[in-house]
Amino acid sequence: MKKTTQKQVVNPWAVSGGKIDYDKLIDKFGCQRIEESLINRVQRLTSRQPHVFLRRGVFFAHRDFNLILDSYERGEKFYLYTGRGPSSESLHLGHLIPFLFTKYLQEAFNVPLVIQITDDEKCIFKNLNPEDSKRFGRENVKDIIACGFDVTKTFIFSNFDYVSSKFYENIVVTGKCVTRNKIDGTFGFTGEDPVAKYSFPAVQAVPSFSSSFPHLFEEDIPCLIPCAIDQDPYFRMTRDVAPRLGYRKPALIESSFFPALRGKNGKMSASDANSAIYMNDSAKDIKKKINGAVSGGRDNMDDHKKYGANLEEDIPFKYLSFFLEDDAELEHIRKEYGEGRMLTGAVKMRLTRVLTEIVENHRRARAAVTEQMVDAFMAARPLPSMFE
Amino acid sequence: MKKTTQKQVVNPWAVSGGKIDYDKLIDKFGCQRIEESLINRVQRLTSRQPHVFLRRGVFFAHRDFNLILDSYERGEKFYLYTGRGPSSESLHLGHLIPFLFTKYLQEAFNVPLVIQITDDEKCIFKNLNPEDSKRFGRENVKDIIACGFDVTKTFIFSNFDYVSSKFYENIVVTGKCVTRNKIDGTFGFTGEDPVAKYSFPAVQAVPSFSSSFPHLFEEDIPCLIPCAIDQDPYFRMTRDVAPRLGYRKPALIESSFFPALRGKNGKMSASDANSAIYMNDSAKDIKKKINGAVSGGRDNMDDHKKYGANLEEDIPFKYLSFFLEDDAELEHIRKEYGEGRMLTGAVKMRLTRVLTEIVENHRRARAAVTEQMVDAFMAARPLPSMFE
Repeated sequence: MKKTTQKQVVNPWAVSGGKIDYDKLIDKFGCQRIEESLINRVQRLTSRQPHVFLRRGVFFAHRDFNLILDSYERGEKFYLYTGRGPSSESLHLGHLIPFLFTKYLQEAFNVPLVIQITDDEKCIFKNLNPEDSKRFGRENVKDIIACGFDVTKTFIFSNFDYVSSKFYENIVVTGKCVTRNKIDGTFGFTGEDPVAKYSFPAVQAVPSFSSSFPHLFEEDIPCLIPCAIDQDPYFRMTRDVAPRLGYRKPALIESSFFPALRGKNGKMSASDANSAIYMNDSAKDIKKKINGAVSGGRDNMDDHKKYGANLEEDIPFKYLSFFLEDDAELEHIRKEYGEGRMLTGAVKMRLTRVLTEIVENHRRARAAVTEQMVDAFMAARPLPSMFE
Repeated sequence: MKKTTQKQVVNPWAVSGGKIDYDKLIDKFGCQRIEESLINRVQRLTSRQPHVFLRRGVFFAHRDFNLILDSYERGEKFYLYTGRGPSSESLHLGHLIPFLFTKYLQEAFNVPLVIQITDDEKCIFKNLNPEDSKRFGRENVKDIIACGFDVTKTFIFSNFDYVSSKFYENIVVTGKCVTRNKIDGTFGFTGEDPVAKYSFPAVQAVPSFSSSFPHLFEEDIPCLIPCAIDQDPYFRMTRDVAPRLGYRKPALIESSFFPALRGKNGKMSASDANSAIYMNDSAKDIKKKINGAVSGGRDNMDDHKKYGANLEEDIPFKYLSFFLEDDAELEHIRKEYGEGRMLTGAVKMRLTRVLTEIVENHRRARAAVTEQMVDAFMAARPLPSMFE
């Protein structure tokens, strides 16, 4: 007899299998859940309220984040590394999550940050030509800068443009430590795949090693990677390899997926425009898209009042839990909507206001990003604030 | 019943199977034999006697060399590309063959030349660390410069040091055009091999494309690669890929292997010091090694006088046919020795004189190579003579 349960597949190119079971994922990947005590420790060490994404479990798993906090407490520096695969010209809300969170971490811990634009990856995996990948990459960098990163602490680089001696050397020695079988097992490649795919995992791995950036780091300092959990396979591989190269294992802090507006529980995808709010959507687009979102409200008013909304299924409420900053108001909506006293329309309207404001603010910030600013962020240079 | 004939294996990492059948190799690889008429055409076009390696069939096979001559005849430029894998600090005579021949081609056709030092390859395949690979590479560059290349026409680069934007972009797009199965089939890799090996073929391929050197070439000009025939698999792959990228297929001119002193017919190997003459051997070493070489002289004087030497098996005579420039003298030795009137000792003595002179001259030339000269050859710069 054939089993009919779908297998849960999570890797950087596929998130499938219906509702994602994050507990299972933590077990399968072997990372750790972020406990209340860890969040409290962050609050104590940074003397500020933890980011809403941390308080509300958007970032829910980690690897060795506690060790990063240990060394921070001893007064040692670390650096942040995150990235972006430029598959399209405009970002959607889901893409912004790691950057908003990374900005918080950078400010709270006052640490340098490197951001890898994997234009080579999108050229390989999405069959874009290098020119389009690079153009998308540069447009995406404007969105990233618009999140408010500090140019004196942030180095953004394109793989196509930055590749250099020590960076390439680390790619080679990393690739020496991983068999092809291991890559096939981790990423699901087969013999029919282009060999360029096999080269890429090491390229995403090496920004985890401070020696890849000789202009930034004079000594080996630890790395913390904020990312969505689908990137975990890259960094499991990186952590396996690091000790064999005499490098530190990077630490990770990992988010769940931002849900699609119309989909069930999968990852928001740039390939279905209606399932995502784009950072260049108009107020009208946003309103329309939110009105079409999957709701947990009941089919008729009587049932709604009797049973309350199904908050587990309600995408607008989920979105509010990501983006409505006021804890008290969110709690109020949870109670009123969950107990049927508040209606779907009101929740959607509140979300429309929240997101319209975020998107409008982002659009204004992005419009102020000049080509010169992009060049400044992407110049291979020492970061003066490193030596404060 | 099991067949006992050994299979002939020729790829960049293995030359085995006893006596190499070069006719079979030409058939198997699908390249063309260099005919007398092609050699005469080279003589006519360059107005000089063709190099001894061409006259005597050391370089015996090609791909599209005739097309290079066609475009040269039309007054169009081409460039030369060859390379060196720095597996040890010192070169042996066999290593020098492609460089001596390339120098002749550069002078005869007055064309620019790029030389790739594959320090990354040796790090991956020979398990050297990057520092040793780079150090060996720089020492080897001194030997290469000592061959007499013109710095105004020659760019030598280390893969670890040179890797840059357009070069890497060509690596990526090349790797997109080749499946992993194809790489396995061509190079014999398996799942247990480190994934870094899979990345390398594209790295050796891309210097065949003039766009990989934006500081050298403003337009797409054709490439001619002088190399030993064991490098053919790389460039078969490159020639398959080139049209899909809108690039020209590189042309090739390919040599047979330089025989080992003590081995049978295989390739001279850097891993057995006694089977090779090194460019830093003393006159005494050279004499001793040549005395120990496999001879085609007969077991006793009577047989020798009766049957003559077996020239096919005689390594000293083979070496003379590579390095004794005087055609008449070589012909004389062939006749006298082959008919038993000249003895093995005399042939070995003649070879010792020839090689001692070559090695001494090389040593003097190498001693005059300064670090500044190495830097000058390896600087990424335009070559002024390109624009003559």
